[in-house]
Amino acid sequence: MERDLFPDSLVVGNDSKIVLCVLDGLGDLPGPGRKETPLEAAHTPELDRILPASSVGLFDPVAAGVTPGSGPGHLALFGYSPERYTVGRGVLSALGIDFPLQAGDVAARFNFCTLSDGRITDRRAGRIPTDTNKKLVAKLRTVTTPGDVRLFWETEAEHRGLLVARGQGLSGELSDSDPQVLGKPPLEVAPLTPTPAATASAQRFNQILKSAERLLASDHPANGVLLRGFASLPDWPSFDSRYGLRSQAVAKYPMYRGVARLLGMRVQDAYQDLDDACRLIRESWQEGDFYFLHFKDTDKAGEDGDFDRKVAAIEDFDSIVPRLLELGPDVLAVTGDHSTPARMKQHSWHPVPAVVHAPATARPDGRSHFGEGACRAGTLGHRPMSHLMSLLLAHAGRLTKYGA
Amino acid sequence: MERDLFPDSLVVGNDSKIVLCVLDGLGDLPGPGRKETPLEAAHTPELDRILPASSVGLFDPVAAGVTPGSGPGHLALFGYSPERYTVGRGVLSALGIDFPLQAGDVAARFNFCTLSDGRITDRRAGRIPTDTNKKLVAKLRTVTTPGDVRLFWETEAEHRGLLVARGQGLSGELSDSDPQVLGKPPLEVAPLTPTPAATASAQRFNQILKSAERLLASDHPANGVLLRGFASLPDWPSFDSRYGLRSQAVAKYPMYRGVARLLGMRVQDAYQDLDDACRLIRESWQEGDFYFLHFKDTDKAGEDGDFDRKVAAIEDFDSIVPRLLELGPDVLAVTGDHSTPARMKQHSWHPVPAVVHAPATARPDGRSHFGEGACRAGTLGHRPMSHLMSLLLAHAGRLTKYGA
Repeated sequence: MERDLFPDSLVVGNDSKIVLCVLDGLGDLPGPGRKETPLEAAHTPELDRILPASSVGLFDPVAAGVTPGSGPGHLALFGYSPERYTVGRGVLSALGIDFPLQAGDVAARFNFCTLSDGRITDRRAGRIPTDTNKKLVAKLRTVTTPGDVRLFWETEAEHRGLLVARGQGLSGELSDSDPQVLGKPPLEVAPLTPTPAATASAQRFNQILKSAERLLASDHPANGVLLRGFASLPDWPSFDSRYGLRSQAVAKYPMYRGVARLLGMRVQDAYQDLDDACRLIRESWQEGDFYFLHFKDTDKAGEDGDFDRKVAAIEDFDSIVPRLLELGPDVLAVTGDHSTPARMKQHSWHPVPAVVHAPATARPDGRSHFGEGACRAGTLGHRPMSHLMSLLLAHAGRLTKYGA
Repeated sequence: MERDLFPDSLVVGNDSKIVLCVLDGLGDLPGPGRKETPLEAAHTPELDRILPASSVGLFDPVAAGVTPGSGPGHLALFGYSPERYTVGRGVLSALGIDFPLQAGDVAARFNFCTLSDGRITDRRAGRIPTDTNKKLVAKLRTVTTPGDVRLFWETEAEHRGLLVARGQGLSGELSDSDPQVLGKPPLEVAPLTPTPAATASAQRFNQILKSAERLLASDHPANGVLLRGFASLPDWPSFDSRYGLRSQAVAKYPMYRGVARLLGMRVQDAYQDLDDACRLIRESWQEGDFYFLHFKDTDKAGEDGDFDRKVAAIEDFDSIVPRLLELGPDVLAVTGDHSTPARMKQHSWHPVPAVVHAPATARPDGRSHFGEGACRAGTLGHRPMSHLMSLLLAHAGRLTKYGA
């Protein structure tokens, strides 16, 4: 894949350190009957204290009006434009359950489904409990496929799971077996490109599906399996190679550690709480130039529609800011991967506030409290999130002049 | 033509309704000796009342510094990037006079010109009155062309007109006969691609031009015809198919109804006044999901350099806002297709203010009056106008998440 001109071609090394804190789903709307968003309503003395040496701005996770999933949201944060760097659902599922995907693996999501006379009557098998899923997955692990190809069946939750095939000469250029409608039989998996590898892989997955169906014949309502989103690990330039950084990812949940791993970041063990996260950062401070700290509680509160809990999560994060500053980062950025307005109980497209604290180089915006409103007319502007990394590198002195 | 990834690939259906009000040439500059633009000076209690549940922003019709005509200005509003979706002048002329262009038709603008010894001495034939144009067009309608091809000669105004050829196997890939300079004879029409259809069509239009010259020989100063901007209807995805909407265009003037028709919108009869426009929207409310209401008076006042009349036009529009809100749209947007500063008496490139009222999902900007200044630091940002449709669809809940 061709390298981006900016910032990649301008990267130079130094001994600066960058900490990027991602408060998942940070952006929001005013609560019912209020004028303030959770971030605006939160008491954040520590974040407010850094504003005189910081610039602020608003960032679109992907594009105008586009609501991102966690994958594209984080790719944008790391400077991988989600329009250009697309990744299949199978790979995202693997990341989401911390499955150690290898180059050449073919991953697909699967659903248990209900078949009646060979036709799909429920694409989610009545949303079977996760325990049932696990029992059936144990059965599916007896399915074999010819040659030197290994299969991995993994439970996600309820009716959802992950199937990975590992071996030589596999291709993920395959169509779904899930027709996405009821009353029809599952589709045959077909090659999307006319290569021998895709043709042989399609045949292989069709055989696997037949074996699975035979095994599950008596397991109504979960007597069938549908595959979709075949994908392999993408061949992208790594984060560290693009930016000349030694990265460290500090995240609690598999999806975020997975995206970091996808970009070749060094991924630390899941942390327990924010204290623990600070400790992981402190203890590895000599081995890293770039820290990605992911904090999920803001998003969870947003998804639950709990305005006050989102406020509390923001205040929890605020309290550790001094411990991050104590380490002496040259650049400390705080933002989100997307908005999750409590009022909407889901991800949204609304632009995300960001603060970039850089005592040596920030042009301050004269704001006294960090929030969506304060970020509207900030020096960082209103840009695609995939531009943020360039700003962080610039503030860290890691981008040289363009042209003479 | 390949579909855009955003927003097209994310469109989902629901029963929401969107109203897009286009105040032609809305953007402006402060009047002479004033600090306010017409929109800022206008008394707009109804628009101001929706601000607490709205986001505002500034939009560039096409690109930095680019002044659009009505065609590109409206294509951008409808999410058809004017850089990518280009349409020939012949087609725009046909739209502008409500000529019912069909697929396969070749349309060109024509100018009456003055010829002396076969050389052009006036490219506009002394700007003959429109009545003279009509008399000469009646004469030109006797021109015939071989085979099963029909010709349509239509008056626009003064020296300007439209020529359309309709039949099998025509091509609009043709060069102009207008050399755009004086003292030279008209150019031969030539094929722009080496196809048999273009070659034959060039020959055909050259014969037509000869016949026209013979007919007009005694009609000095309008004794010649120059053709330019050959074009056929473009093969674009329709507005409704891109966005999953049932659109309704409510406009008084042919050009705007024409652009709407070009995108396959359902176009209502020309309205008489804003009362009438409201009635058309109300009476079709069950048959539409998306309403495009075009209001021309703002632009006309701007073109005339009449600051006060532009203020009055804005206030006229303001008074119907409650009638639009009564219908219960999920999203009501008010903006322009470009700026027409009264001080400049012409279209300009200045960014256009926009308000998007969406009670369920807008992040309000804390402004008390709608105007260019208030829109500068709005949540909608400062973007290309072709991104507005994505925002309207997002606020209407009509875009699904991108990626997992």
